[in-house]
Amino acid sequence: MSETIKKTRVVIIGSGPAGLTAALYTARALYDTVVITGKYLGGQIATTSDVDNFPGFPEGIQGPELTERMKQQAEKFGAQFVFDEVKEVDFEHGSPFTVRTYNETYLADSVVVTIGASPRHLNIPGEIEYTGYGVSYCATCDGFFFRNKDIIVVGGGDSALQEGIFLTKFAKSVTIVHRRDSLRASIDLQKKAFANPKISFVWDTLIDEIKGETLEGGIRRTTGVTLRNLKTDAVREHPIDGVFVFIGYDPNSRIFGTQLATNDDGYMLVDDHMRTSVPGVYAGGEIHDFTFRQAITAAGQGCAAALSAIHYLQANEDNLQTLDLPAVEVVAEA
Amino acid sequence: MSETIKKTRVVIIGSGPAGLTAALYTARALYDTVVITGKYLGGQIATTSDVDNFPGFPEGIQGPELTERMKQQAEKFGAQFVFDEVKEVDFEHGSPFTVRTYNETYLADSVVVTIGASPRHLNIPGEIEYTGYGVSYCATCDGFFFRNKDIIVVGGGDSALQEGIFLTKFAKSVTIVHRRDSLRASIDLQKKAFANPKISFVWDTLIDEIKGETLEGGIRRTTGVTLRNLKTDAVREHPIDGVFVFIGYDPNSRIFGTQLATNDDGYMLVDDHMRTSVPGVYAGGEIHDFTFRQAITAAGQGCAAALSAIHYLQANEDNLQTLDLPAVEVVAEA
Repeated sequence: MSETIKKTRVVIIGSGPAGLTAALYTARALYDTVVITGKYLGGQIATTSDVDNFPGFPEGIQGPELTERMKQQAEKFGAQFVFDEVKEVDFEHGSPFTVRTYNETYLADSVVVTIGASPRHLNIPGEIEYTGYGVSYCATCDGFFFRNKDIIVVGGGDSALQEGIFLTKFAKSVTIVHRRDSLRASIDLQKKAFANPKISFVWDTLIDEIKGETLEGGIRRTTGVTLRNLKTDAVREHPIDGVFVFIGYDPNSRIFGTQLATNDDGYMLVDDHMRTSVPGVYAGGEIHDFTFRQAITAAGQGCAAALSAIHYLQANEDNLQTLDLPAVEVVAEA
Repeated sequence: MSETIKKTRVVIIGSGPAGLTAALYTARALYDTVVITGKYLGGQIATTSDVDNFPGFPEGIQGPELTERMKQQAEKFGAQFVFDEVKEVDFEHGSPFTVRTYNETYLADSVVVTIGASPRHLNIPGEIEYTGYGVSYCATCDGFFFRNKDIIVVGGGDSALQEGIFLTKFAKSVTIVHRRDSLRASIDLQKKAFANPKISFVWDTLIDEIKGETLEGGIRRTTGVTLRNLKTDAVREHPIDGVFVFIGYDPNSRIFGTQLATNDDGYMLVDDHMRTSVPGVYAGGEIHDFTFRQAITAAGQGCAAALSAIHYLQANEDNLQTLDLPAVEVVAEA
């Protein structure tokens, strides 16, 4: 395929709740909007089976269905979806901004970055298969489903202990599995965890495999893990109802290189108007928010980023150049 | 009725999208949660007929239905709703915080303030009757419904001009009605508005009345206004499809007196964790956000405020006193 250059008013990079909400807002404000979805439509929420903390759905909703509904809503107002990944961008020369995917090059007057972060995985057999069926990366999201259950928490940092303590509100027992014989977490959290009668520790240990079963109706369920002691190499089976993995996140900011300011961990820096370091480029969701990380907070931030983009487009209407180039080519996907 | 003192872990003041989302999160984290709804359940969104920019509802949803769904969802996880108004609070002595309504006194370890702001009204006949049926206080929310229509914008400040210019994307004509013969808005916005061929001005003029009709099926529709020139006292009828009122907002912060820090306009000051000036008290929604003012941004902020409250409760579990008082009395409404 020969590369063509496509023009639009707004490009949104990412299609989780932040990106889909941003698209709804810019499209509904009658700005041509192209959403570049990335590898997976919907981001992290699309891999979540039961979402019961997105307000407005008292009976709960499946992550893929919530994603599809948000996408339809943005499309209803004219947002175009492109199922492709961003390869590189050129933000250094101001508007029009260049966004290159594997198949096309886009020029846009404003860009909203909602490309998210990815929880670090254990990369072991069973982990992907049982994600959403006992394997989780979010205590706030999923703790409620583990009332009176036995669960494992993997990790030794602040978030592992903090979330582990939080999970004792729900779980019968929390076993913290850590690959070393001491914790990186703050002393205060360590004291709280050691004093908690529901928490026990397994030191110097990795999980080799997560095991489960498929129930009638095709629902999967986690039933146990294989533990390996790194000092003795001894392997044993350990029955368990759930595995919470808290070994960190990686913000997906690599494709921007040094063009957008980030903190040392790669999270984008934004002000309270969701402005990045480049005027005309805004960000929302987990690409900048390492604190709240909820679908509803991401959606709110995506809306805020879109409103700032709309304000930028409106205030700079006389100077923006994308529309002066030949007529906007409609981006249509089969 | 004799006043009783009721105890709970979290009191949420306000029941718009911010308060209902906060309640969902604190209740789902298994903290006893009481929502004091205020005079109207749902806040501003509950007075909005068609909401088509809350993500997740591609076919749109009625404001009262969205409110009811969010309330049910919080109740499902145990949040208790009290249909009463807060009269005064005592936050100055730290936790437990005292919240007095007209009927009861509540003690709580943490408080989330989501009491909102109120758009200033014209206080003229027809205004309330046609709100949501041609009368609006939000261009971002409702502009889309006025494609190719003739509308009036009331006001002379920055927001009247900015929203008026934005509304020209949708409307066939925008008539700005202002009670003086010059504008308070910034010169830059004035230039843009004067240069916009869709915008015209009516000076020295008030609207005396908003008129409309009721269609088959009971749907109301705005059809015109009565204009009165303040210099000549001349009165004339002016047919119109919609009236957007941008004469300011009042944050509902009076009941807090000087106990929570605000800016000069009375909006609460919060940091990026939604912390107010009092540790243990958090805020979300339009009581602090005078920029974005959307249901989805309020919901996200309410979630963030709740997560910070949860973090506070967890970190201070050993020092909090409400639970040391006699057993928590369940707050039940008939």
